[in-house]
Order: sequence, then C-alpha cells, then structure tokens
Amino acid sequence: MDFSSKLLENAVNEISQLPGIGKRTALRLALHLLRQPEENTSSLAEAITKLRSEIKFCKRCHNISDFELCEICKNPNRNPEVVCVVEDVRDVMAIENTSQFKGTYHVLGGKISPMDGIGPNDLTIHSLVEKVKSGTIKELIFALSSTMEGDTTNFYIFKQIEPFNVLTTTIARGIAVGDELEYADEVTLGRSIVNRIPFENSLKI
Amino acid sequence: MDFSSKLLENAVNEISQLPGIGKRTALRLALHLLRQPEENTSSLAEAITKLRSEIKFCKRCHNISDFELCEICKNPNRNPEVVCVVEDVRDVMAIENTSQFKGTYHVLGGKISPMDGIGPNDLTIHSLVEKVKSGTIKELIFALSSTMEGDTTNFYIFKQIEPFNVLTTTIARGIAVGDELEYADEVTLGRSIVNRIPFENSLKI
Repeated sequence: MDFSSKLLENAVNEISQLPGIGKRTALRLALHLLRQPEENTSSLAEAITKLRSEIKFCKRCHNISDFELCEICKNPNRNPEVVCVVEDVRDVMAIENTSQFKGTYHVLGGKISPMDGIGPNDLTIHSLVEKVKSGTIKELIFALSSTMEGDTTNFYIFKQIEPFNVLTTTIARGIAVGDELEYADEVTLGRSIVNRIPFENSLKI
Repeated sequence: MDFSSKLLENAVNEISQLPGIGKRTALRLALHLLRQPEENTSSLAEAITKLRSEIKFCKRCHNISDFELCEICKNPNRNPEVVCVVEDVRDVMAIENTSQFKGTYHVLGGKISPMDGIGPNDLTIHSLVEKVKSGTIKELIFALSSTMEGDTTNFYIFKQIEPFNVLTTTIARGIAVGDELEYADEVTLGRSIVNRIPFENSLKI
C-alpha cells in the first residue's frame, strides 16, 4: 500500500499487528479514528497503555486483577478448597456467568502445546502443584477444552498431583441443553450415555 | 460481561468503540496485548495518538498528509490542471496503485448523504468550486462510487461548476478486465456497449 503519510502508515502497521486484523481493516480503523474527536483516540490509547502497564495477576489464582488478590479469591463466600482449573480469564468469565460455581479458580494461562512452543513451564502448573502439595485443596475440577492440547494438559497435571490424593473431577461432557440428539456427534452422545446421572439430580438445577 | 478487572473492562469498552469490533473481539485483542511485551502496546498507543494529533490535511487537495502540502501536490511531475475528485484517501491509494494517473486529486471527505446527515457543507466541495472558479483546472474527473450518494454528489458539483466551462469527465464503467460477459449485470454491460472505444485505444494500456 502506498500511504501519503508516514503517521498513517505507522498507525496502520501497528494496528495490523493485532490478531485477525489485516492491513485493510487497520486502514479502515485508522481513518475512523481520524474522523472522531481527538479525546476518543487519546482515551483509547490511554486505556490500552494502562491495561498493559498497571494490570496485575492474582498471586493465588493467576487471574487478571487490579489488586494483589482478585475479587474471587478475596471473597469470603467462595470456597478455596474447591479449585477449578481453566485456561484463561475468558473461561473464568464464562463460568462466573453461569452463577453455578462457588469455589475458586486456577488460571493456567494456556495449554501445553508443543506445536506453538508452549511447555509446562510456560504455564502456572508449578504453582498449582504447590497448592495441592500444601494440602489446601480438597477438589480439583478440570475445565480445559477437550482438544488434544487440553487433554494433554489435564493428564500432565493429573500425573503431577496423583501422589497427593486429591479428588480430581472434570466438567461433564454431553449433549447441550436444547440440542437435538440426531445432530449430536457420536463421541459426545456416547459420553453422555455412559456418564448418565440420576433423573432426580437433573431436576435440581 | 463480568470482568475481574476495571482496567480490562475499560480497555475492552474503548476497543469495542471501533467499527466492526464487538465486545468479544475487543476482549480477545485486550488479552492478546497482555500476552505481548509492554513495548508493543506502548508503540501501538503512541502511533494512534500521534496519528490523531499530528496529522495534517493537504491544504490544496485535502488528502491526508504529514505536511502542509501532500507528496502528490508537491510533486512537479504531476499535472495540477487535471484533478480527480475522490471520496477519501483510500480511493487516492487505489488510483495511485494503478500508476495510470499523472494529475492531482481533490479529496471530498465523503459523499452527500442525507441519510447519514452529511450535506454539501460537510465536504470540501466549496474549496473545489473555488479552485475551478480561479481557472487553474482544465479537466475534472469524477471518480466517486456509482451509488445513489455518489451520483448525487457528482451532480451537485457539476451544477456548481457548470458556469465555468471546465471539461468534466467521469471514470469509465464497464466489464472488469478478466470478467465473463454472461455474469455481468445488465446495467454495467449496457454502459460498456454504449461507451465502447476504438479497438486501437484498448491496445495502448
């Protein structure tokens, strides 16, 4: 692209570094900013700069937080003995939105994925194992996505904590509420039959 | 969405103000920035702040520029007597990429569009008419998109400059190079037959 301005070219290059945003979209966004009042651009710039420079990660669960301990870990009504292991903050948000979980979290920061060069040491697995070792955890719930990487990560953590005899569960896989059986894939349908639950239990939620 | 951090929430809200970016994409982008080195975020923030605060518009053609006059208007090899009227800087870039145009531009900054509340006074039409009036222009080429708004804008400008007897042309509409006739819409095909050109001329490009 042949820009008539270095400033524009620079902005487009920076914006197009973001994932899923190409040069054309970046140019569209840059031209949009030029049409807006200058305050809009400075508040956008300030918000992302502050986000990066001031954000903290909860020292207990590694969730994103504005303070040393996140809101969930600080909350006395949450049970610190039940810990749900998730990939990142988006999963915490998804589970929080259900209002069905009263325990706390442990955010791994990703999944073991040799293809992307992410090994166990790039994640917060060590700190999770330490927590299990110290005996503060009664139940560990694996809530990673059921992909090859998720399963590998689950298994790796499971092997590390096996000696400490902690109850380890995984979230239920099955047919989504409202879905038709005939369109479900056979693995999911198979699991939902094998892991069937007493009918009375399904009435409780 | 239930964010565990005000900083994150603020950044997501700011990013999702951009056109075509919803809350979910904004969250994805914010989390991406958190995983990158801090320099990346600050250079992005700086680029967009500088873009908005330091950019200038060429005082002759209203194109985006880092200086008083843009590179094209400054270039002594460009003919200031042939002026191509376009909507915005993206159209300038598109035409520049063809390397077929040796004249200069006039960037309107949009099209007359009552639906979006854009009237003739929101565009740079007045300054174009002044240029025509002063007699420095020999040919005016309309290169707006052929929509209702584009046609309206062309017609409005044409009416304003009619008294000054300037040669006014419009870019050729026709079947795109490489396209099959059978898939072309009839308006375009019709125009390309009516506006046919001598075969020898088509060999020159």
